[in-house]
Amino acid sequence: MPKPTQIHDHAVPLIELWRSDLLESVHFGHAVVMRPNGEIVESWGQPDALIYPRSSCKMIQALPLIESGAGRDLGSAHLALACASHQGAGIHVQGVARWLSELGLAEGDLRCGTQAAEDIDERNRLVLDHESPCQLHNNCSGKHAGFLTLNRHLGGGAEYVEVDHPVQRAVRLAFEEVTGMTSPHYGIDGCSAPNFATSVQGLALAMARFAAASDTGDARARAMVALRDAMMRHPDLVAGETRACTELMRAMGGRAAVKTGAEAVFVAILPQSGLGIALKIIDGGVRAAEAAITALLIRHGALDPDHPVVARYLGPMKNRRGLIVGQTRCAPEFLQ
Amino acid sequence: MPKPTQIHDHAVPLIELWRSDLLESVHFGHAVVMRPNGEIVESWGQPDALIYPRSSCKMIQALPLIESGAGRDLGSAHLALACASHQGAGIHVQGVARWLSELGLAEGDLRCGTQAAEDIDERNRLVLDHESPCQLHNNCSGKHAGFLTLNRHLGGGAEYVEVDHPVQRAVRLAFEEVTGMTSPHYGIDGCSAPNFATSVQGLALAMARFAAASDTGDARARAMVALRDAMMRHPDLVAGETRACTELMRAMGGRAAVKTGAEAVFVAILPQSGLGIALKIIDGGVRAAEAAITALLIRHGALDPDHPVVARYLGPMKNRRGLIVGQTRCAPEFLQ
Repeated sequence: MPKPTQIHDHAVPLIELWRSDLLESVHFGHAVVMRPNGEIVESWGQPDALIYPRSSCKMIQALPLIESGAGRDLGSAHLALACASHQGAGIHVQGVARWLSELGLAEGDLRCGTQAAEDIDERNRLVLDHESPCQLHNNCSGKHAGFLTLNRHLGGGAEYVEVDHPVQRAVRLAFEEVTGMTSPHYGIDGCSAPNFATSVQGLALAMARFAAASDTGDARARAMVALRDAMMRHPDLVAGETRACTELMRAMGGRAAVKTGAEAVFVAILPQSGLGIALKIIDGGVRAAEAAITALLIRHGALDPDHPVVARYLGPMKNRRGLIVGQTRCAPEFLQ
Repeated sequence: MPKPTQIHDHAVPLIELWRSDLLESVHFGHAVVMRPNGEIVESWGQPDALIYPRSSCKMIQALPLIESGAGRDLGSAHLALACASHQGAGIHVQGVARWLSELGLAEGDLRCGTQAAEDIDERNRLVLDHESPCQLHNNCSGKHAGFLTLNRHLGGGAEYVEVDHPVQRAVRLAFEEVTGMTSPHYGIDGCSAPNFATSVQGLALAMARFAAASDTGDARARAMVALRDAMMRHPDLVAGETRACTELMRAMGGRAAVKTGAEAVFVAILPQSGLGIALKIIDGGVRAAEAAITALLIRHGALDPDHPVVARYLGPMKNRRGLIVGQTRCAPEFLQ
């Protein structure tokens, strides 16, 4: 039996961190740019490296919610929250609380677990009000509100995160269809939902299908358009202030939807060109995933290289006194 | 001219993160275990890979403070703070404030810059008291108090972080002596002090010299003993609650001093065996540096493999609902 491929097989340097004249750290990874017909436009590393997409596939996990009709009364803000890895700011927590209330449900019906608020204003508010964070603060609470909405339609039991629950069976089916492959593994995500493995290429193909979808197409195409447009319309709901997804989508003004996933996955949907992008940094380094997707968004015309947000992810690094001490840049093997 | 070696040349997998049955992320690095005579006991990756030790070398940066006699009135708590990358808890901030006051100096004399408090209690206190963090909260403020103490002795100017300032010239001299090599580069650290590059092997050699030093030796040996013993005596001052340096040193009860540095450097001083350890994860992933040093401390008899702290760095990973979702483990190429 051949040795199974590993995540680091054939990975290439993507992002370098220089301090003065020394390369201090380097991040290896895999990146693929795809067309919806399955053609690879360009790639670095191993396109068929197996990954968990983690939260980068939330727009896929939300497809059954829309396609089934369960989400027909949801507005674009709901859909953006369903695709979000939010930071538990007031707008996120209140948005999900309202959504649950519309369903006649409450925080206790979620199965995502409690997470500390990452949003500084909300964190400070909790301290000042002597409150504790709850499941609404979990970065996945919007996705779970979507699961609960689908579950009401499907009539499944309360434990909607179990892998053989009708909600997760529907998610798996959609996931395998849009990635074009059977998922060989699943893992349990930080929010307790199953996360289905695929290849970097499979994830990029799914994003290309989102990119090329038309609202005159079939139910799936219309669901894809609704989700991708909701993300681009509400960058603040998808992540939060200072976060890459929010900042990059704001900077691109509707030219792309982007989404991060834990362990340094990043995807992009480029409707103007019909391209999909997926990348994984093998060490899980988020800063490198953010830098690499920034470089690819510039390369494919979605992001203005002179937009001030670019410097947050690529370029000079400053220290605590504002001195320039180094540089984050693309590796020569990538886009230098 | 041969191509200069790069940080990733000959790096090997050290730490793996598994989720269910899939290797989700992997960290490559270099690690060296040395004797004080320059003999390599064992190594992984490239011993002569060039790195910035960053904060892992604070006990080296404190040598001139002791050797010069400038620090003769300092207690072990001062020395622990001089070697600390603390998290700005009350004990750290107050300890450094008192030290500066003993010098007749104040927070404004520091040149480390302001950093948000990482310690949750202190962060919450600042919020409740409507205060802002200051330079005392900078994780390097104790090192800088040491620099200011040495500076008083040397009679240098106020800008003690400049590379040609007498304080930094003294640091460089000690650094090159204990690492056994001329430093080929320096970078500016997060706290604005110069950080001199060395090899992983050079850093491990320095740690072995700290490990083998005797308080019946010369001024350098006595300084090494004082600093290493201060670190082991005050694990809480060197980092803070929940932090690896503090937790590991507490668990080892005087069997080793350990210190982390930014961009995933970790060192250990093992006085019982006279061994020194240094490692660098090439991607800067702190979790992997913590896991790798934990494994090496167990391997070299300093840390009990059954101590509960081990599970914080190696072993099963839990998600936000406490479910076991994966595992952090040593790579087969390392210590599996």
